[in-house]
Amino acid sequence: MKRAAEGPEEDVNGHPAKRQVAQEGDLGHESCVRRVARDGVAEEEDEVKEDFGGFPSEETMNELENIQKELFKLDDECAKEQMEVQKKYDKQKKPAFDKRNEIIAAIPQFWLQAFKNHKGIYIHQEDEELLGHLKTIEVDDNLDHMGSYKLTFHFEPNDFLESLTMSKKTTILDGNDEVCEISPIVWQENMDIVSRIRERRKQQQEKGESPVDSDYSLFEWFTQEAPDDIPDLGEVIRRELWHDPLQYYLEECDEGGLIDEEEGEEEEDEAEGEEYTPMDGSLVR
Amino acid sequence: MKRAAEGPEEDVNGHPAKRQVAQEGDLGHESCVRRVARDGVAEEEDEVKEDFGGFPSEETMNELENIQKELFKLDDECAKEQMEVQKKYDKQKKPAFDKRNEIIAAIPQFWLQAFKNHKGIYIHQEDEELLGHLKTIEVDDNLDHMGSYKLTFHFEPNDFLESLTMSKKTTILDGNDEVCEISPIVWQENMDIVSRIRERRKQQQEKGESPVDSDYSLFEWFTQEAPDDIPDLGEVIRRELWHDPLQYYLEECDEGGLIDEEEGEEEEDEAEGEEYTPMDGSLVR
Repeated sequence: MKRAAEGPEEDVNGHPAKRQVAQEGDLGHESCVRRVARDGVAEEEDEVKEDFGGFPSEETMNELENIQKELFKLDDECAKEQMEVQKKYDKQKKPAFDKRNEIIAAIPQFWLQAFKNHKGIYIHQEDEELLGHLKTIEVDDNLDHMGSYKLTFHFEPNDFLESLTMSKKTTILDGNDEVCEISPIVWQENMDIVSRIRERRKQQQEKGESPVDSDYSLFEWFTQEAPDDIPDLGEVIRRELWHDPLQYYLEECDEGGLIDEEEGEEEEDEAEGEEYTPMDGSLVR
Repeated sequence: MKRAAEGPEEDVNGHPAKRQVAQEGDLGHESCVRRVARDGVAEEEDEVKEDFGGFPSEETMNELENIQKELFKLDDECAKEQMEVQKKYDKQKKPAFDKRNEIIAAIPQFWLQAFKNHKGIYIHQEDEELLGHLKTIEVDDNLDHMGSYKLTFHFEPNDFLESLTMSKKTTILDGNDEVCEISPIVWQENMDIVSRIRERRKQQQEKGESPVDSDYSLFEWFTQEAPDDIPDLGEVIRRELWHDPLQYYLEECDEGGLIDEEEGEEEEDEAEGEEYTPMDGSLVR
């Protein structure tokens, strides 16, 4: 069946995102109530209007709002408690992550391959060589109960970088404000991929040429001026590549799932149980 | 920034859905390993191939797979523990839900209005009158740790229905298999909206006319033969309408968010804090 819930973000309980006003102890519905009362509900729906028994009293609306506030408050408490559980398991997972990083670092071009196999991001030709020197990804996850996180790339010595790490800490405030702390990338002379691509983009714009969508460097994500339309590398990594890097290393994968690259094997793969098993059931409240 | 993670379902930790094989104690990568080793990694990527330092040994791959299994196992345990937290809060929320249902039942056409204001579902004209008699929605949520749930509609006496309730229990197995138990709708004579719409659809198909997309009855969701392209009413209700019915009752809303119905008020509303504050931060691991 068609999923109706697609666009919006969800909180930890799988609920759609709440409006800020709800968290600030004021549902902010007063103005809506007034407006709806003024305009009449279902103004354009004549066949309904005639049956409509009138707008509820302010007292009723207040009562409903108070109940809703109480429910939202419990949701928030629940989310916090669930995050505590998450953090407990994050700690337990740490040694396995460390060991995994150690093994991956010894496999040549592991991350380059994993990134390239991820269908959701396009790896620019100019990025490939440097990505091939990426040895270790470090994810410091859930730094607070809002799920702020820090991502660090560690490279082996290479011709591009002076500093062998680049990192970006994403702080989530009020649900969605991301305040980022970035360690500036120090490039070797004339090896700044990002500037090169940006310069080209600028020239294209000046000439009035339409820019090529995928003409960005993934390393732009580690800069303050990341363009709006590049993939959110942090989300791709923490939710997908970091979750199952081996899967991405081995086969071309869509976001979050496995797509078989060989035509005609679909049936065989289904029989092998390679279809997804979304855990969405456990997501919703 | 563009979200890369859009399509796939996520588990309770915000991870993309896992492949079933991972839960069955067999990552199923063996065949992939063999195939990739046979075909060569990055076959089409000549510029990479020349740098590629060889495929890791079977021992290394096994080690990686075992670590991954351990991580998945911890994820599963974490999800279960988080579901226990959820259930604890579900219990605490029950009295507020009951009280809310009581108030809503006394407001004429509350649910009809809420449904109509939900931008993600289209309410068929034929459904409207009956939906106007819907008094109470009952959501029995998280019946197990997979998040199975049961939805029941309670109607006031009306010209359409013999039985005043309709219900559907959705059991989630292995992550995504939904086994549904449905209480058959008992219609009054000649008042079966669903059959009427289905009959019309069939006639259109026979005439070779292209069917109208939205020409379905929402009550079809409560039947065994729900067409694939009708909105998943259960998800809309449990995740959205049930989460904040007042919001939907009051204003036209997109899935999970508020869309102001009056043009030109955007700025004013933004100043009032009516933008969304996704809690996505707390979703991810």
